[in-house]
Amino acid sequence: LVLYASYWQIITAYPSNGGAYTVASENLGPAFGLLAATALMVDYTLNVAVGVSAGIGALTSAVPMLAPHTLALCLAVLVLVTFVNLRGTSEAGVTFSIPTGIFVVSWILILGIGLWFVARSGGHPTPVIAPPPGPKSHQALDLWILLCAFANGCTAMTGVEAVSNGVSAFRDPPAKNAHRTLSAIVLLLAILLGGIAWLVKFYGIYAMDQNKPGYQSVLSQLAHAITGNGILYYIAIASVLAVLSLAANTSFTGFPRLCRQLAHDRFLPKAFELPGRRLVFTAGIICLAAAAGALLVAFGGITNALIPLFAIGAFTAFVMSQAGIAVYWWRQRGQRGWLTRMIVNGCGAVLTSVALGIIIITKFAEGAWITLIAVPALFILLWRIRAYYATLRRQLAYGKLQFETEEAPVVIVVFETWNALSAKAVKFGMRMSDDVTAIHLTAMQGPEADENEQQLRAEWRNNVEIPASQAGFRPPSMLLVRSPYRRFLKPLIRLVRQAEHRNPNRTVAVLIPELVKLRWWDYLLHSLRARNLRNAILQEGSARTIVIDVPWHAEQEGQPRMAAE
Amino acid sequence: LVLYASYWQIITAYPSNGGAYTVASENLGPAFGLLAATALMVDYTLNVAVGVSAGIGALTSAVPMLAPHTLALCLAVLVLVTFVNLRGTSEAGVTFSIPTGIFVVSWILILGIGLWFVARSGGHPTPVIAPPPGPKSHQALDLWILLCAFANGCTAMTGVEAVSNGVSAFRDPPAKNAHRTLSAIVLLLAILLGGIAWLVKFYGIYAMDQNKPGYQSVLSQLAHAITGNGILYYIAIASVLAVLSLAANTSFTGFPRLCRQLAHDRFLPKAFELPGRRLVFTAGIICLAAAAGALLVAFGGITNALIPLFAIGAFTAFVMSQAGIAVYWWRQRGQRGWLTRMIVNGCGAVLTSVALGIIIITKFAEGAWITLIAVPALFILLWRIRAYYATLRRQLAYGKLQFETEEAPVVIVVFETWNALSAKAVKFGMRMSDDVTAIHLTAMQGPEADENEQQLRAEWRNNVEIPASQAGFRPPSMLLVRSPYRRFLKPLIRLVRQAEHRNPNRTVAVLIPELVKLRWWDYLLHSLRARNLRNAILQEGSARTIVIDVPWHAEQEGQPRMAAE
Repeated sequence: LVLYASYWQIITAYPSNGGAYTVASENLGPAFGLLAATALMVDYTLNVAVGVSAGIGALTSAVPMLAPHTLALCLAVLVLVTFVNLRGTSEAGVTFSIPTGIFVVSWILILGIGLWFVARSGGHPTPVIAPPPGPKSHQALDLWILLCAFANGCTAMTGVEAVSNGVSAFRDPPAKNAHRTLSAIVLLLAILLGGIAWLVKFYGIYAMDQNKPGYQSVLSQLAHAITGNGILYYIAIASVLAVLSLAANTSFTGFPRLCRQLAHDRFLPKAFELPGRRLVFTAGIICLAAAAGALLVAFGGITNALIPLFAIGAFTAFVMSQAGIAVYWWRQRGQRGWLTRMIVNGCGAVLTSVALGIIIITKFAEGAWITLIAVPALFILLWRIRAYYATLRRQLAYGKLQFETEEAPVVIVVFETWNALSAKAVKFGMRMSDDVTAIHLTAMQGPEADENEQQLRAEWRNNVEIPASQAGFRPPSMLLVRSPYRRFLKPLIRLVRQAEHRNPNRTVAVLIPELVKLRWWDYLLHSLRARNLRNAILQEGSARTIVIDVPWHAEQEGQPRMAAE
Repeated sequence: LVLYASYWQIITAYPSNGGAYTVASENLGPAFGLLAATALMVDYTLNVAVGVSAGIGALTSAVPMLAPHTLALCLAVLVLVTFVNLRGTSEAGVTFSIPTGIFVVSWILILGIGLWFVARSGGHPTPVIAPPPGPKSHQALDLWILLCAFANGCTAMTGVEAVSNGVSAFRDPPAKNAHRTLSAIVLLLAILLGGIAWLVKFYGIYAMDQNKPGYQSVLSQLAHAITGNGILYYIAIASVLAVLSLAANTSFTGFPRLCRQLAHDRFLPKAFELPGRRLVFTAGIICLAAAAGALLVAFGGITNALIPLFAIGAFTAFVMSQAGIAVYWWRQRGQRGWLTRMIVNGCGAVLTSVALGIIIITKFAEGAWITLIAVPALFILLWRIRAYYATLRRQLAYGKLQFETEEAPVVIVVFETWNALSAKAVKFGMRMSDDVTAIHLTAMQGPEADENEQQLRAEWRNNVEIPASQAGFRPPSMLLVRSPYRRFLKPLIRLVRQAEHRNPNRTVAVLIPELVKLRWWDYLLHSLRARNLRNAILQEGSARTIVIDVPWHAEQEGQPRMAAE
């Protein structure tokens, strides 16, 4: 009831989007927002894992021969759901409402029949299929047991906040419809949870260890006891499988949306902010699937082991959003009813804090410590990412354009053969500066190389130096770099660095002529040297080094054909 | 004897390197050279496959339980040999001479013992382990059987040409030592082949079908019959395995060397010409291993099926080099002894042609047709590769540098945010030309985008246009390109093409500012947009489009650290 009242008010206060991240960020500050967001991210991941594994748990209860393949089945469903989401799905629609409807109707029917049996038999119903015997020794009801039961019960309520996340998606008037939906959810939750708790007692049904053979979920035992092994049993169990898988699916819209908000605030890289070709947030979906898959593998696909982890994230987000909205009402003080509202949400914050404390304490040894590591770790990672972007932005900050009287750049042209491509690069270089050096890379050695060198020098003189002088330019010089065994990167980078040292205030422009490749076999017939040179110079050169790619574009300049002439 | 005399003379004529490719290219023309080369390439590949599979055949004869894993063992040995060669091995040395010595000594010993048994028993030796019975029906000796036997016999001589390929590797005087080696090879061949042929008859040993269970090679049967199942048997069979694997290994030096020659003559890409870091010709080794592996898989690792393919390549090379050397002597006519020599090699050419014809006819159906497809196919491929490079060289040919009075380039600067990096790019662009347009790419839409656009325009005016005008420059203009869903490539390429159309004689220079990434997490935190833009513009732009990479180099410009401040 506290959660119901609290969320009713959140919907009122944030009629467009009252997610815990937004509410906590705006009212408590970015650190609290990020805490809520990371808790929710962990929670969305757990929701996928819990949904998938609970669905498969229901399936293996009905078809016990599948039980040994629990993990494989979980991963298969996860992969399927991920692919469907990468292709883009609409959240609403008939696909989602039919199994949900079947689930609600079939379970209310089963619970109704069960209550009628209980009433008819005077509190001693005969199960159609008897549930397995419970544990022999019954523990006394002490405080610890009570707290554990409370913590487990809280887990059932983790879905309540979903309505507040997507109020804007409701039909007009959105807030009113959201309130109705919240009421329906809480009512159904009360009926189903109450009915099950009541009937389980009369039929003597106990939770079984999922790791032991012959496991059946409580729902499966109950349906067996009330309806036997008939068609209604299978419809009910199938609807559990479908609804849980769909529940897992809701994370695939919620998680990427949350990532988008975080990326917008620079807590995550931009890739999370912009939708891909299919209008889905690919990066978010993939991260979610990978994290959920890792969880499923780590826990062997067994739901029970994952549930303790689930409650912490949800209740952290509850606390953050209740506290945030309480502060919101405080800021709105003076408006009609602000005090009542603040008290309601304040109580919500306090009570959910208490619940969170109880959950942490009772579930700590069962695996909750993992969440207590995961949430702060994720928090620190995201906080540092924002710091990284902030530092970068500060370092790159620049105001009015300032013009220094800078000399023309030092131009280096890399070439292998004197041809139209190298000529194009040399001419472009000469346009930029009168300080042009062409560097010839050769792998040859010995007498062959000497002969080749002389020929190259004569060629350079005739083809470049003399025409340049005649046209009134300072002739570009040529430097021969011999390197055996194709190691050209290092000598070239050394030359670039030398040029930088010799000209401390000038830009060094390295021109790389490149055959632009268009067909797959061209890649086989040419080396990737141009690409390698470019990447190496960009990585190894200083800030004053600029790389200029001069392409030879086969298509427009006469395409060489491989056909024999 | 014909081959012996022929190759004796080839060593005399080409004391440095008398490979079939060189001899045929220089004396008969490049087409004949390439024919010899492709035949040899097929042959080297077959040598690897035959060597490995025969070695494994010897192993499975000795250890029959390994027989079902023949193919897997073959591929394992192939992978091992490939890796050893990629790391670089020395061809000569103790590693190679020891197993060869053991092989020669142990087999001469076995053959000697066998001959002594035959002599002692008066031509009716009792086998220590009796060979399996031969086929019941004996075919009459007709011409076809004779031709088949001749063809099979020819296969044994395929290694004779190896000496002429590497004369320069011999100690001084190389030609003399090469002649001695050739003599030793031919003598050993005669002794081993003759001895085996003789003894096999006395012991009633027949070739078995390798595809049938209980297969033993002729050598294994013979060693069993003469020495039983003792230590000598295992030494002899192990030496066969070792020698055959080493024989396979020789291809790994020969094939890449041949590829190097072919690449030097532009029949293959340059990658085959230059040695890699470990001084091995990586491309050649990998191609050889891939082709041999494909052969082993296609033939299931069974030697017998591969041998028919082997002889054709070898004899094609024989014919080419004999014919080439005969032409060589003809050109040397007038020198002492040219006629005799020409006749010897002419006879060699004619006889190897006849042998080649016989091999093709008798082995055609057994698989030789594959070689008859593979060699011409490879020939055509390599010929076309040379034609491709020739066309490209012709298209790129360029003589004296010519200076057209060309206008300054049209400069396009791509940017996302106004910062030091985009300022650097704009300044560099303004240095090249007074026609600078900055293009801002934004994914935003709706009212947020409009607001953002106004802010950007104001920023541009204050930070760029006004300072540029004040400094006496023509102010660069800004163009906003909105594209939802991160599709920036197409609109940008459209703009580049428009600029090309509007300025038919000017170069279009696209400046791309890029954060140069140094650490792995930087790649996670930044998009690859700069790289994608560059590649797309190089591919899609025309020849007049030049791409200029303006890097922001973290190291020298103040490295952003991820640490929380």
